[in-house]
Amino acid sequence: DFATVDLHRRDRCGYPEVIFAEGKTPEWTAGVVERLRQAGQDCFATRVNDDQAAYLATRFPDGIQDRIGRTFWYPQSTEPRTLVGNVLVLTAGTGDLPVAHETLNTLTAMGVQSQRIVDVGVAGLHRLLRHLPTLQSADVVIVVAGMDGALPSVVGGLVDCPVIAVPTSVGYGTTFGGVAPLLTMLNACSAGVVTVNIDAGFKAGYTAALIARRVAKRNVSE
Amino acid sequence: DFATVDLHRRDRCGYPEVIFAEGKTPEWTAGVVERLRQAGQDCFATRVNDDQAAYLATRFPDGIQDRIGRTFWYPQSTEPRTLVGNVLVLTAGTGDLPVAHETLNTLTAMGVQSQRIVDVGVAGLHRLLRHLPTLQSADVVIVVAGMDGALPSVVGGLVDCPVIAVPTSVGYGTTFGGVAPLLTMLNACSAGVVTVNIDAGFKAGYTAALIARRVAKRNVSE
Amino acid sequence: DFATVDLHRRDRCGYPEVIFAEGKTPEWTAGVVERLRQAGQDCFATRVNDDQAAYLATRFPDGIQDRIGRTFWYPQSTEPRTLVGNVLVLTAGTGDLPVAHETLNTLTAMGVQSQRIVDVGVAGLHRLLRHLPTLQSADVVIVVAGMDGALPSVVGGLVDCPVIAVPTSVGYGTTFGGVAPLLTMLNACSAGVVTVNIDAGFKAGYTAALIARRVAKRNVSE
Amino acid sequence: DFATVDLHRRDRCGYPEVIFAEGKTPEWTAGVVERLRQAGQDCFATRVNDDQAAYLATRFPDGIQDRIGRTFWYPQSTEPRTLVGNVLVLTAGTGDLPVAHETLNTLTAMGVQSQRIVDVGVAGLHRLLRHLPTLQSADVVIVVAGMDGALPSVVGGLVDCPVIAVPTSVGYGTTFGGVAPLLTMLNACSAGVVTVNIDAGFKAGYTAALIARRVAKRNVSE
Amino acid sequence: DFATVDLHRRDRCGYPEVIFAEGKTPEWTAGVVERLRQAGQDCFATRVNDDQAAYLATRFPDGIQDRIGRTFWYPQSTEPRTLVGNVLVLTAGTGDLPVAHETLNTLTAMGVQSQRIVDVGVAGLHRLLRHLPTLQSADVVIVVAGMDGALPSVVGGLVDCPVIAVPTSVGYGTTFGGVAPLLTMLNACSAGVVTVNIDAGFKAGYTAALIARRVAKRNVSE
Amino acid sequence: DFATVDLHRRDRCGYPEVIFAEGKTPEWTAGVVERLRQAGQDCFATRVNDDQAAYLATRFPDGIQDRIGRTFWYPQSTEPRTLVGNVLVLTAGTGDLPVAHETLNTLTAMGVQSQRIVDVGVAGLHRLLRHLPTLQSADVVIVVAGMDGALPSVVGGLVDCPVIAVPTSVGYGTTFGGVAPLLTMLNACSAGVVTVNIDAGFKAGYTAALIARRVAKRNVSE
Amino acid sequence: DFATVDLHRRDRCGYPEVIFAEGKTPEWTAGVVERLRQAGQDCFATRVNDDQAAYLATRFPDGIQDRIGRTFWYPQSTEPRTLVGNVLVLTAGTGDLPVAHETLNTLTAMGVQSQRIVDVGVAGLHRLLRHLPTLQSADVVIVVAGMDGALPSVVGGLVDCPVIAVPTSVGYGTTFGGVAPLLTMLNACSAGVVTVNIDAGFKAGYTAALIARRVAKRNVSE
Amino acid sequence: DFATVDLHRRDRCGYPEVIFAEGKTPEWTAGVVERLRQAGQDCFATRVNDDQAAYLATRFPDGIQDRIGRTFWYPQSTEPRTLVGNVLVLTAGTGDLPVAHETLNTLTAMGVQSQRIVDVGVAGLHRLLRHLPTLQSADVVIVVAGMDGALPSVVGGLVDCPVIAVPTSVGYGTTFGGVAPLLTMLNACSAGVVTVNIDAGFKAGYTAALIARRVAKRNVSE
Ligand SMILES: Nc1ncnc2c1ncn2[C@@H]1O[C@H](COP(=O)(O)O)[C@@H](O)[C@H]1O
Ligand SMILES: Nc1ncnc2c1ncn2[C@@H]1O[C@H](COP(=O)(O)O)[C@@H](O)[C@H]1O
Ligand SMILES: Nc1ncnc2c1ncn2[C@@H]1O[C@H](COP(=O)(O)O)[C@@H](O)[C@H]1O
Ligand SMILES: Nc1ncnc2c1ncn2[C@@H]1O[C@H](COP(=O)(O)O)[C@@H](O)[C@H]1O
Ligand SMILES: [Mg+2]
Ligand SMILES: [Mg+2]
Ligand SMILES: [Mg+2]
Ligand SMILES: [Mg+2]
Ligand SMILES: [Mg+2]
Ligand SMILES: [Mg+2]
Ligand SMILES: [Mg+2]
Ligand SMILES: [Mg+2]
Repeated sequence: DFATVDLHRRDRCGYPEVIFAEGKTPEWTAGVVERLRQAGQDCFATRVNDDQAAYLATRFPDGIQDRIGRTFWYPQSTEPRTLVGNVLVLTAGTGDLPVAHETLNTLTAMGVQSQRIVDVGVAGLHRLLRHLPTLQSADVVIVVAGMDGALPSVVGGLVDCPVIAVPTSVGYGTTFGGVAPLLTMLNACSAGVVTVNIDAGFKAGYTAALIARRVAKRNVSE
Repeated sequence: DFATVDLHRRDRCGYPEVIFAEGKTPEWTAGVVERLRQAGQDCFATRVNDDQAAYLATRFPDGIQDRIGRTFWYPQSTEPRTLVGNVLVLTAGTGDLPVAHETLNTLTAMGVQSQRIVDVGVAGLHRLLRHLPTLQSADVVIVVAGMDGALPSVVGGLVDCPVIAVPTSVGYGTTFGGVAPLLTMLNACSAGVVTVNIDAGFKAGYTAALIARRVAKRNVSE
Repeated sequence: DFATVDLHRRDRCGYPEVIFAEGKTPEWTAGVVERLRQAGQDCFATRVNDDQAAYLATRFPDGIQDRIGRTFWYPQSTEPRTLVGNVLVLTAGTGDLPVAHETLNTLTAMGVQSQRIVDVGVAGLHRLLRHLPTLQSADVVIVVAGMDGALPSVVGGLVDCPVIAVPTSVGYGTTFGGVAPLLTMLNACSAGVVTVNIDAGFKAGYTAALIARRVAKRNVSE
Repeated sequence: DFATVDLHRRDRCGYPEVIFAEGKTPEWTAGVVERLRQAGQDCFATRVNDDQAAYLATRFPDGIQDRIGRTFWYPQSTEPRTLVGNVLVLTAGTGDLPVAHETLNTLTAMGVQSQRIVDVGVAGLHRLLRHLPTLQSADVVIVVAGMDGALPSVVGGLVDCPVIAVPTSVGYGTTFGGVAPLLTMLNACSAGVVTVNIDAGFKAGYTAALIARRVAKRNVSE
Repeated sequence: DFATVDLHRRDRCGYPEVIFAEGKTPEWTAGVVERLRQAGQDCFATRVNDDQAAYLATRFPDGIQDRIGRTFWYPQSTEPRTLVGNVLVLTAGTGDLPVAHETLNTLTAMGVQSQRIVDVGVAGLHRLLRHLPTLQSADVVIVVAGMDGALPSVVGGLVDCPVIAVPTSVGYGTTFGGVAPLLTMLNACSAGVVTVNIDAGFKAGYTAALIARRVAKRNVSE
Repeated sequence: DFATVDLHRRDRCGYPEVIFAEGKTPEWTAGVVERLRQAGQDCFATRVNDDQAAYLATRFPDGIQDRIGRTFWYPQSTEPRTLVGNVLVLTAGTGDLPVAHETLNTLTAMGVQSQRIVDVGVAGLHRLLRHLPTLQSADVVIVVAGMDGALPSVVGGLVDCPVIAVPTSVGYGTTFGGVAPLLTMLNACSAGVVTVNIDAGFKAGYTAALIARRVAKRNVSE
Repeated sequence: DFATVDLHRRDRCGYPEVIFAEGKTPEWTAGVVERLRQAGQDCFATRVNDDQAAYLATRFPDGIQDRIGRTFWYPQSTEPRTLVGNVLVLTAGTGDLPVAHETLNTLTAMGVQSQRIVDVGVAGLHRLLRHLPTLQSADVVIVVAGMDGALPSVVGGLVDCPVIAVPTSVGYGTTFGGVAPLLTMLNACSAGVVTVNIDAGFKAGYTAALIARRVAKRNVSE
Repeated sequence: DFATVDLHRRDRCGYPEVIFAEGKTPEWTAGVVERLRQAGQDCFATRVNDDQAAYLATRFPDGIQDRIGRTFWYPQSTEPRTLVGNVLVLTAGTGDLPVAHETLNTLTAMGVQSQRIVDVGVAGLHRLLRHLPTLQSADVVIVVAGMDGALPSVVGGLVDCPVIAVPTSVGYGTTFGGVAPLLTMLNACSAGVVTVNIDAGFKAGYTAALIARRVAKRNVSE
C-alpha cells in the first residue's frame, strides 16, 4: 500500500493531515483525498502539479483549485463558515505572489481571516508605511520575500505581534534558490521574527492560523 | 558616539530595545544600560560575556545575572508582577540547557509564565510522552535541540499550538555548529513548526512572549 | 573497450558486480549484462532509465524489471530459492517509495527476506508504534526518509538491531536535494544508526543483506 | 534538574544509555554516572574532556579511563566476561588512532572482541593486502580514515562482511574538518559500505557490536 | 627577500600601495614602511595586530595608529591638507564600529572628507530617516552592517548616489562569519548598491575615495 | 492587485523603478509598463524572457528590445538626448557578452556614454594592455568575467577610477554557476574593486551611471 | 565584435588558443575557427554542443569531430605527424569515458602519444594491478574518476611519475556534481597527485602534453 | 603499535615515505624518523609544530629544520649532491612565504634545483613581467597565492611549461581559508594549470620534482 493516512491528526493538532502532493502519482494523491473524505475530514493539498490538478478536477469536480498557489481544497461541508482572527500577508515583490497564495489558501482552509498587501519591498519604504494602521492591527504578519529578504526586519520593528517570514526562491545568482533571504530572515535584527522553509507558504499560513485561532478562541470563550 | 538607542521601540513593539552585548566593550554595554534606565525603561541584555558581566555587576549591583544563560536583567520596577500565559520550554539534551536559560529569562523579563522539561530527546520517547497533558495545555511550545534536531517534528505532531524550534550548536562533525538541526527544523514534517537562528534562545522566547501576551490580553480584555 | 567487468567479485564479496546504469548507453549496459551471463553470474542493475529499460526488455525479455525502483534483475537460475533472514524496510512518507523499491529489490536479488511498512513518519507516532513487535523482530531495520529525516532517530531508540538510514531527495527548499535528512541521520541521537548516500536504496539493501545472511549462515551452520 | 536518564534503554536497545560528555559540567557528568549506577547499569561515557576526566577519577576511582580515546567506563560488575564476535578496526594513518580508540573501547564495553591494524592507507597497498586473511575472517570491518578517505572503498572490495566507515577530521585545507573523507565514504564504489558522523568512533563501534552480538547470539542459541 | 613593493602604483592608481599587515612579521611590516618612506610615499597599513602596532610605534613614533580600526598611517608630509568630497559612513549597529573605523581612516588618508552616523539599523527606521538630508547630500554612502545586512537596501532606495555595502562578521549562528549580510547585500533590491568583501572597510573607503576625488577634481578643474 | 509601482523613485533615486521581469506573467509585465507610461516615466525592464518579449512587442511596438541582453526599453520621449560621462565595459571572454549587453543597455537608458572591449582575458595580457589609454580615460571601468574572474584584479592595478566587477555564470564544474569568479572579485588584490551579484549586468551599469552622471553634473554645473 | 583571438599564444605557450565553445553561437564558434585558419594555426575546440557540431561540419567538412568527447579538431596540415611521449589515461568506470575522450583528443591534437585503460576502479584492485608495467612506463598518468574518486590515491602509490587527477560529475546525491571526487583528489594521500577542474579532461590532457613534450624534446635535443 | 612505515615506497615512487607530522605526538614522530633511518632512507617531515621540532632537535641534532616552512629534513648521507632541473617558485604576496618555504625545502630534499621570486601579484604586473626570461626558462613554475589567486592564470599565459598552483589560506572573509584562490585556480583560463590542496606546498614541490627529475634523467641518459 502507498499511504498510512493519519486520520487522528485532526484530534491532536486541530486540523487534518494536509496532503503534500509532490512526488505522488495523480492516483495516489486522489487515493489520499478519498480516504480523508471517507473519514469525514476536510481535504487540503499543497504543491499540486498540473497533472495532479487535472486528475483531481475529474475525480472531485467540487474541489476548489488555485493554479497560482498550486493548492487543492475540498472542505467536508459546503456551508459557509465564519472566519476568525486577522492575519496580514505582505509580499516584497510581484514574483512572491504564488507563495503568498499558498499561505492565503491555507488560512482560509483553516477558517482564519486574512488580508494581503503586495509589492511593498524596502526599496520604496513609503509603500509599506502607508499601511501602518493595518500592520498594527494584525494578530500575525506573514512576510513573503525573495532576493535580499529585508522586509521582515523592517516590519518586525513596526509591530507588536509575531512576524512569520517566508523566504522565496525569487532572484538569481547569489540568492541560491532562496538561501539568501532565508539567512537574512534568520538573522533579522528585529526580535519577534520566526522563519519557515524556502517557499513554505503553507507552513507560515498553518502556524499563523494556530496563533490566530488560539487568540480568537480565548476571546470567544470568555 | 557609539550607539543610537531606540527608546521608542517599547511603544511600537511592546518591549524596549534588548541589548545584544556581543562585540561591545563593557563600557559601551553599561552605557546603553544607563540610557535605557534614564528613559525609565526595562533593561535586558543577552550574550553577556564574563568581562561584561563583571563590569555590569559593579556598575549595577541590583541587576539580575544568569551566567548559564548569559543574560543581564535590570527591570525598572522592583515590585513583583503577575506573569501571564503558559509557555513550555523543552530540551532534547542536557547540553541544550544554556540556550534554554536564555529563552526562559526572556520570557520572565517580558512578563510571561514558563515551565521547562529537560533532556527528553527522541531516542527515549517515553520521556516525552509522559508529559503529554503538559504539552497539550501550553500556549506555545519552544523546543531546544542540537545534533539531529528531531524533537520539534515529534512535538509538532502532538499539539495544536505553535511550536518554535531552536537549533543549538551542540554536537560535532556534521552538525556544523548547528546547521544540521536547523535544517531538520526547517524541514519538520509537522506543519506548525517555525524556526529561529542557531542558539537564538532569545528570539524564540521573545516571539513566544508576543503570542502568549496576545492570547492573555484578549482573554483579559474580554 | 568500454568496461572491465569484475567477474571475480562474487568470490571475494559474496555477490557479483552490480551494474550502475547511469551514464551508460543502452548498448553498453546490455554488453555488461551479456558478459555476466556468459560467466554464469547473476545480473542486477540499478538506476536504469527508460531508454535502457526498453532496450534491455528487447534483448533480455526474461529479465525482471521494476520501473518504480528502476532496477533490472536477471538471475542465472530460474528455480525458486529460499530467502533467508528478516529485514524490515520503513518509509517516512509516500514519496520515499521509489527508493524503498530499490532497497527491496536488492534484498530479494541477494536472497534475503524483507517486509515493508510505508508512510509512518514521526508527525503521527502511533502509526509506527503499532508495529513495535515487527520492528523488534527484525535483523536489520532500513529507514527511508526525506525532509526532516527524523524517523531513524526514533526507530533507533526502539530496537536492538542495527538501523540503516537512507536519506531521500524528497522535499524542497532547504532539503537541498537530500542534504537535510542526510545530516539528520549522521547526527541521529540513537547510537546504532549508520547512513548511506542520498537515494542510495541499493547500498542500504546490499549491506543489510550482508548482515542478514551472516546471521542466517551462522544459524544454519550451527 | 539537568537530565532525564533513559534507564529503560537497556531493555529496548540492549545497552544502557551512553553519556555524551560534551557540553556537560563535571558535576552533571558525574550525576548521570551516579544514576546509572544506582539503577544497576553499566556506565560508558564518550568525549570526556580533561576536567571531566579528573573529576570522575576522584569520584569513581574504579572507573576505567582512556585519555587517548577520551572514554570513561564503569562496568557494574568487575567479574571478567567472555567477549563474543570478531570486529576488525583499521586505520589509514597514525592520526586516526584517537578515533579508533573510541571505537575499540566501545566494543569492549559492549562485550565484543576486536583486533586493530594501524596505518595501512592506500598509498602503500601491500601493507593492507598482507592482512587479507584477517580481513576476510571478520564479522564487521570498521575503517577509520581522514584526508582522502579512500581506504573503505578498497576494503569493501575485498570482504563479504559489512564495512562501517568512520571519517576523521585528520587533514587540512579542503578536508574541511572531515567533510572530504565523509563524502568519499558516502560515495564509496564498493557496495557494502555504510558511514557514520565525522570522528564518530563510538557510533561505528556500537553498531558493529549490535551486528557481532546478533551473529554470535544466533550462533550460541542454536 | 620578503617583498617587492610596488612603488609605481601611486602613478598608476592615484595612491601608493597600502600594506596588508596580516601574515607579516613586525619586522617585515616595518621593512615595507621603510621602503615606502625612502621612496617619498605615504604609508598606510591595515589589519595591524597588537605586536605589529607595538613594534611600529617604536620604529615610527610619529605614525598615527588607531587600535579600534587596526590601522597605521604615516603620511609623508605633516602639513595639514584640505580634504575634498563628502562621503557618509553609516553603521547598522555598535559592533560594526571597528570596520567603520577602517573605512574612515582610509578616507582621511586618501584626502577625502567623511561623516559617520552610528547604530541606525532598520529595526528602528526613524533613527535613519531623521538624517535624510545628510544622506541625500553625500557623494557616496558607505553602509557597514552585520547580521541581516538589510540597511543598504533601505538606504539605496533613499539616495541618488552610489551605495557601497560592507558586510561585517557581527552576529552568530547562521550569519556564518558575515556570509549572511554579504548575500543580502549582493541581492539588495535597490539598484545602486555594490559590495565588498566581509569586514573589508578598507576597500569600501578606498573605492569611495576614488569616486569622491573624481567628482571633486572635475569640480575643481572646471 | 499584482504590483505597487514606486512612481516616486525617480525623484528620490534619479531614475524610475526598473522592471525585474523574472517571475512575472507577460500581462503583469505589460501592466507595470502601462503604469509607468501613464505616470510619464521612462520604462526599462531586465531579464525579459521570450514570451514576455513577444507580448511586449505586440503591446508596445515602439519599445526597444535587445534579445541578447534580454532588455526592454521604452523611453518617454523619442527625442535624441546627449549622453554624458565615459564608462568602459570589458569582458574576459565571448560568453560574457549577454551580461555585458545588459550593462550597456542600462547605461544608455540612463543617459550615459559607454564603450566596450570584448574577450581580453588575462591568459593573453597583450590584448588588454594595448587598450591602456582607453582604460585610463574612463570614469568607471566595468569588468564582466566568468571562470577564474581574474580580470578585475589586473584592471584595478592599471587605473585610478573605480572598477565594478560582474561575475558571470560562464564556466563549468567548480565555477558553481558564478560563485568562483564572485569570490575572486570579492578578494581582488587591487583595492578599488567593488562587486555585484552573479550575472547582474544591470546593477553594475546602474551604479556606474550614478557615478558618471555625478561626475558630469558637477562638471556641467561648475 | 565578439572575439579577440590570441594569435600570439602559440609562440608563448607552445600551442594555439583552444576554443571553449560553451556559450558561443555556432556562427561565433565558426568565426574563431576561421581566424585561426587564416593565421595558419591549428584549431582545436572543446565542449562543442550538437548545434555547433552540425554547423562546423557544414562549414569545415574536413574538421575531425568526436561526439563522445565533444571536441572539434582542424589541424592546419593534413600530413601525418610523429607523436612523442607516453601518457596513460585511466578511468575508474565506464561513465567517465566522455571526459577521457576529451583528454585523449587533446593529447593527439598536441602531438602526444597516449594509451587508455578503462573501468579499473578500486573495488576490484586486480583489474588495475595487472597493468602495473604499463603504469610504471608512463611519463604521466591521468586518472579520470567520479563518485569516491579514490583511484588516483592508489595509482599515485604505484608510480614514480606525476599523476593528474580529473574528477567527473558521474554519481548522484552527495557527489554534488563532482565535488566529492574533487575533494578526494585534492586530499590524496599519495604525494605526486595534482588536480584539475571537474570534468576538465582538456586541462589534464593539455598539461600532460606539456610535460611529455618537454621530456621528449630534451630527449631529442640531446 | 602506532605506525606501519612504507619502507618500500622509495622503490615504487622514487622517494621514501614523507612524514605528515600533524596529529602525531613528538614521540611517534621521532619513532617514524628512527625507522626510516634504520632502513637507510632519507627522512623528510612536513607540518612540524613547535613541540615536535624541539623534541626532534634533541633526538636528531643533525636534522635540518626550517621553522618558517615547518619542515624537518634528515638526509641519509651528508655528502653534497648535485641538484638537477630548474623549478621556479613564485608568490603573489609576502604572506605566502611559509607555504613557499615548504615547497622549496621539498624540492631540495628531492634533489631538484629551485629559484624563488616573491610578492609579484597581479595588481602590479610590471613586477612579474620583468622576470619573463626566468619564467620562460623553467621546467615547472609553481605559483603560491592566496586571496584572489589570480597569479597562476596570468603566468600560465606566459610560459610553455606546466604551472602548479598552490592556493594559500592568506586573506579574510570570503577567502574562506583558501577556498577562494583554490576555485580561481581550478578555473584558471590558462590551460596548463593544475592545482593542489590549500597550503599544500609540499605536494606542489613533490610533483614538480617528479617532472624535473624525469626531464633531467632523460637528458642525462641520452
Ligand atoms: N507544502 C508543504 N510543505 C511542507 N510540508 C507539507 C506541505 N504540505 C503538506 N505537508 C506535510 O507533509 C506531510 C505529509 O507528507 P506525506 O506523508 O508524504 O504525504 C503532512 O504531515 C503535512 O503536514
Ligand atoms: N560520541 C557520541 N556521538 C554521538 N552520540 C553519542 C555519543 N556518545 C553518546 N551519544 C548518544 O548521546 C545521547 C545522550 O545525549 P545527552 O542526553 O545529551 O547526554 C545518547 O542517546 C547516546 O546514545
Ligand atoms: N536585473 C536585475 N537585477 C536585480 N534587480 C533588478 C533587476 N532589474 C530590476 N531590478 C530591481 O527590482 C526591483 C523591482 O522588483 P519587482 O517589484 O519584483 O518588480 C526594482 O527595485 C529594481 O531596481
Ligand atoms: N574545456 C575547457 N576547459 C577550460 N578551459 C578551456 C577549455 N577549452 C578551452 N579553454 C580555454 O578557454 C579559453 C578561451 O575562452 P574564450 O575566450 O571564451 O573562447 C582559452 O584560453 C582556452 O585555454
Ligand atoms: Mg516591485
Ligand atoms: Mg540525554
Ligand atoms: Mg504521510
Ligand atoms: Mg602512514
Ligand atoms: Mg543598536
Ligand atoms: Mg577568448
Ligand atoms: Mg565498472
Ligand atoms: Mg605585495
